[in-house]
Amino acid sequence: MAREYSTLPRPSVLPGPAEIFAPVSRKLRSVNRALRSWPGRASPVLLRMARQTVSKQGKLIRPGILLLITGHLGYKGKNDTILAAAVEAIHLASLIHDDIIDRSAYRRGEKTAVERFGPNLSLLLGDFFFIRSIARTLCSEDPEIPQMLAATAQKMIEGEMEELEESFNLNLTPDRYLKIIEKKTASLFQTTCRLGCRLGGTGRKEETALAEYGLNLGLAFQVIDDLLDLVGQPAETGKTAFSDLREGRVTLPLIVALKHQEPAARRELKRRLERISRDQDRASISSLLAIMKRSGAFRLTFEQALALAGKARQAALALKPSPHRQSLLQLVDFVLWRKK
Amino acid sequence: MAREYSTLPRPSVLPGPAEIFAPVSRKLRSVNRALRSWPGRASPVLLRMARQTVSKQGKLIRPGILLLITGHLGYKGKNDTILAAAVEAIHLASLIHDDIIDRSAYRRGEKTAVERFGPNLSLLLGDFFFIRSIARTLCSEDPEIPQMLAATAQKMIEGEMEELEESFNLNLTPDRYLKIIEKKTASLFQTTCRLGCRLGGTGRKEETALAEYGLNLGLAFQVIDDLLDLVGQPAETGKTAFSDLREGRVTLPLIVALKHQEPAARRELKRRLERISRDQDRASISSLLAIMKRSGAFRLTFEQALALAGKARQAALALKPSPHRQSLLQLVDFVLWRKK
Repeated sequence: MAREYSTLPRPSVLPGPAEIFAPVSRKLRSVNRALRSWPGRASPVLLRMARQTVSKQGKLIRPGILLLITGHLGYKGKNDTILAAAVEAIHLASLIHDDIIDRSAYRRGEKTAVERFGPNLSLLLGDFFFIRSIARTLCSEDPEIPQMLAATAQKMIEGEMEELEESFNLNLTPDRYLKIIEKKTASLFQTTCRLGCRLGGTGRKEETALAEYGLNLGLAFQVIDDLLDLVGQPAETGKTAFSDLREGRVTLPLIVALKHQEPAARRELKRRLERISRDQDRASISSLLAIMKRSGAFRLTFEQALALAGKARQAALALKPSPHRQSLLQLVDFVLWRKK
Repeated sequence: MAREYSTLPRPSVLPGPAEIFAPVSRKLRSVNRALRSWPGRASPVLLRMARQTVSKQGKLIRPGILLLITGHLGYKGKNDTILAAAVEAIHLASLIHDDIIDRSAYRRGEKTAVERFGPNLSLLLGDFFFIRSIARTLCSEDPEIPQMLAATAQKMIEGEMEELEESFNLNLTPDRYLKIIEKKTASLFQTTCRLGCRLGGTGRKEETALAEYGLNLGLAFQVIDDLLDLVGQPAETGKTAFSDLREGRVTLPLIVALKHQEPAARRELKRRLERISRDQDRASISSLLAIMKRSGAFRLTFEQALALAGKARQAALALKPSPHRQSLLQLVDFVLWRKK
């Protein structure tokens, strides 16, 4: 199934996060150290869980973006590391809580917090990262920074709520889907870019371009994520497959596939989706995937991501050339073509 | 079973929250209005849940304490309402998440958020209240206020984690139990008092007294809560009974009862506790309650609460007399003798 969703050839050279974030690799290591030290003089149980969670090194995409932007803008201070860690902590908090909601056992090829520590302790661990992410920026000179982070966290939470509300709603429109993933995912990418600008100090034009970059990169990221849930290889994605279908979540490939179905076929699809969620029914998963494939839904979904990535690329090109800008451009390709 | 835990007569006149908080009743109504309006221009799903949660009027003890203190200190501004709402929001967030952890269906005589909205949406609702409680105080002139709230929220989360860690640990000492409930419950009472002092502006001596008041009142509150879980009448408490036993939580009455048991009896008690948690075994609950009653554990636990309440009363008496101080003193009796 994999890779059948695009008629475009995958670029033969595709830099990964290590190469993309090379200009800020030293700072990224500080971000990781900062996150591990955050519980401070806390309970041993919290220290242990936080350390295990942070050491499961993610791709650190959001901190990487922030540091590339402050790097591009010539920022010389140290607050970028703290802010990058705060952004990653919000991301971690929402991942930990999402995995409880989705009952996901694997992420990044490793056990999720909920699988490792159980739902109760990981619920509290997510709470800790939410609170700490805001708290850690309270001492910054710019009082708007914690406000921006808190407003973004609230948006993410609302996006998650709306997504849950729309479970099993086969009348979900592409516009509404995009609004939801904007809140749930893209808002943090966009805020990350804005925070980089605030710290680096830049003109209105460049900030607008970077906010546009973050928004569209974030949207493309989530569209591809939703595609990978259906067509990715668990061995590559490191995640449990079909978790969206299992939770009755209506994502873009399904919306696209549904578009030209007759009412009777839609009702049948809804029944199958409910059966998957109730009984984990493998046959229903296969039949749903076949329908999506036949209707060209994977290809059309990828094209949507391609268009969003194009907008992100366009926005980044408005910046003056620099090695950091080069990395921001490479990141667009990575987000689009990644297998995990 | 009820009321058998004290040889002292219950005071014949016992003012309830409405009378105790009469000097600040107008402000308390603003707190409730503020909380209901907090989601702002948010998703309808969040607005609906927040409104339903806040309208389930709790006792508003923490906001009431803060307002009594600012009233006592002659504070004339409006920030006390916002701060009182922030304190209540942290409390709400932790209640919502606790009820998910404890699988509690009833609280305050009404369905809990988890029962009403399911575990997923209520997890996110708790996240919202945590984030919003800090965010709402970011614009205050005193930058230490959001820091105090965030540090307290972190403490509460750690207390909950430690409590979970100690489940089924029949070697839990009274000291460790007190340390845990200090983090979990008393820290927010104490911070509430400190925040009132900061806003009202007061000398070091008075602030120390009020911090002492909050700490001991909070400890007494939790000890009584743990007692009511075992001897309270669900019709009065409005909560599901024996939720601590069902979750294997070792609270003071059990610790006290265990103190003089032989090793063999302790092992038998542990097996019973595990059976209660696994099978909701009614016979094991009855037998555990009988052992606690025989050993005088309820009476001794109440005496511990009585001693803590005495310290709170002593601390409040260090303030100059005022109608607000009178309310703070009445509150001590209410916390001690309440049936819910």
